[in-house]
Amino acid sequence: MSVSDAKPALATSSVFERGNLEVKGIKVEKSAERKALFIVSPTKDGKYPVFLFVHGCCVSNTAYSQLLQHVASHGFIAVAPGDPLVSSLLCCCGDQELDSDANVLDWMPDGLPALLPDNVTPDMTKIAVGGHSRGGKIAFALAISTTNLKISAVFGVDPVAGGSVDNRPQPKIFSYIPRCLDLNIPVAIIGTGLGSQAKCIIPPFAPCGVNHAEFFNESKPPIYYFLAKDYGHGDMLDDGIEYWFTKLLTKHGQGSKELMIKACGGIIVAFLNAKLKDEEEDLRIIGEEPSVAPIKLDPVLYVEN
Amino acid sequence: MSVSDAKPALATSSVFERGNLEVKGIKVEKSAERKALFIVSPTKDGKYPVFLFVHGCCVSNTAYSQLLQHVASHGFIAVAPGDPLVSSLLCCCGDQELDSDANVLDWMPDGLPALLPDNVTPDMTKIAVGGHSRGGKIAFALAISTTNLKISAVFGVDPVAGGSVDNRPQPKIFSYIPRCLDLNIPVAIIGTGLGSQAKCIIPPFAPCGVNHAEFFNESKPPIYYFLAKDYGHGDMLDDGIEYWFTKLLTKHGQGSKELMIKACGGIIVAFLNAKLKDEEEDLRIIGEEPSVAPIKLDPVLYVEN
Repeated sequence: MSVSDAKPALATSSVFERGNLEVKGIKVEKSAERKALFIVSPTKDGKYPVFLFVHGCCVSNTAYSQLLQHVASHGFIAVAPGDPLVSSLLCCCGDQELDSDANVLDWMPDGLPALLPDNVTPDMTKIAVGGHSRGGKIAFALAISTTNLKISAVFGVDPVAGGSVDNRPQPKIFSYIPRCLDLNIPVAIIGTGLGSQAKCIIPPFAPCGVNHAEFFNESKPPIYYFLAKDYGHGDMLDDGIEYWFTKLLTKHGQGSKELMIKACGGIIVAFLNAKLKDEEEDLRIIGEEPSVAPIKLDPVLYVEN
Repeated sequence: MSVSDAKPALATSSVFERGNLEVKGIKVEKSAERKALFIVSPTKDGKYPVFLFVHGCCVSNTAYSQLLQHVASHGFIAVAPGDPLVSSLLCCCGDQELDSDANVLDWMPDGLPALLPDNVTPDMTKIAVGGHSRGGKIAFALAISTTNLKISAVFGVDPVAGGSVDNRPQPKIFSYIPRCLDLNIPVAIIGTGLGSQAKCIIPPFAPCGVNHAEFFNESKPPIYYFLAKDYGHGDMLDDGIEYWFTKLLTKHGQGSKELMIKACGGIIVAFLNAKLKDEEEDLRIIGEEPSVAPIKLDPVLYVEN
């Protein structure tokens, strides 16, 4: 190839593929101190940052196992609290979920190590919180509220704050003023383009005014925003009854769901690498060349100061 | 005073006081080419930038005379289109107002000079559009749509895009995606803190989800955002029936309305000075020290890139 034909090397990022670490899923029963958990941890000896992941309304914590495995395989311990579906439904409109997830956070330093594989240690100085749908809002609320733990980053996967601007369950975190959230840690938001669209007469699960866009608007920099334009609100779930339920009731993407899970997983890994491990490279690459992701991300917005 | 007592000089900005230029208000009847106008122009010989100002729903264009005089006295020609109140009410839910205001813009290069004081000339290379309430949205729509004139800046005074997220009249400019407005010119937004609050059972005139915050969210940088936290949706109007109407139906500030008009006028002058005259100083000062304004502005957000 002559010099004139030379093209710059295409950017790539390994975060969109499974990481090198083997991982193990661990289901933990409810105890007197905390609700039930689904933990996904690397099995290799080591000390790893932790992220608490809050499931969406009417979705179990195990319905995100592919996503959580993807992230954990890059060297993170995922802790996904989750009561049985009935309890989850009952607490849809109250503070209970926030309180019970805050309990899990407070319990983790003493309680989590014993539940992990041998010689795997959680690094309690490096903690992020995140969640999907209503769980995304709960994650923001956890980050805002005072806990004994220092939370270093928060992310939402198609986060939703309610049924509409005027119908928002507690805790109502929005004020509809730009950058007003009382949150001084880095924020990442993945939105879906189809989540705000009604399916026939069924209202959307991530309506305009209470979805990803408002989370972006009310967060302070640094904010990292990614819109999965052609995907729907449930397209990052495992196959299973909950996915088929969302597929029935909401618009879903025509593209591969596996690629959506890889995209969400990769973005979360890039964000957590940057903010918990000081490894900025992949987050920078995605910002500069969103086409490195396996799905279309449009727009990608980094607001760093 | 010893050196150790020395304090840095307090920042000041003259934009919040009337400018040095005498101004004249000119009411112009409707013609075959365009709707009626209220023009406020400096009387001193000169060439001045122009701003088109679109009134709010159910408010006449002359109800902003104090605000428009304030801005014009700093060397701008204000052109405020306005049909009689009945026509204005009839076109609340359609494209008519956008079209008729676009007509005014297209008519200005040939038609405006003859209506101005002797030896006053409009500088048609320096045009901004702005408006209050629904007129703020129309201003954004004008800036987005193609006209024969180059529009260099757009501003909204408590702009409103509809009654709710799900009840927005044409043109529906929002997509509920951050920074998606097809608008590549500087934007300034003044919001009111009380405009989104209901008064007893009367719904707010500037509801959450369709007000200043969403205009901020969907605009691309450079954006200049100012929240008049303690004032209401109609607190920049002249005294008169329209002001008393808004005072009856909406929450209004307890502070001086004169100061609110000075604050809005001063912000508009600082913004137009920066974007139409390359005089950046006052806009910079307000951003660095919002307390130079005669009312509390909180937050003040400048997003320049």
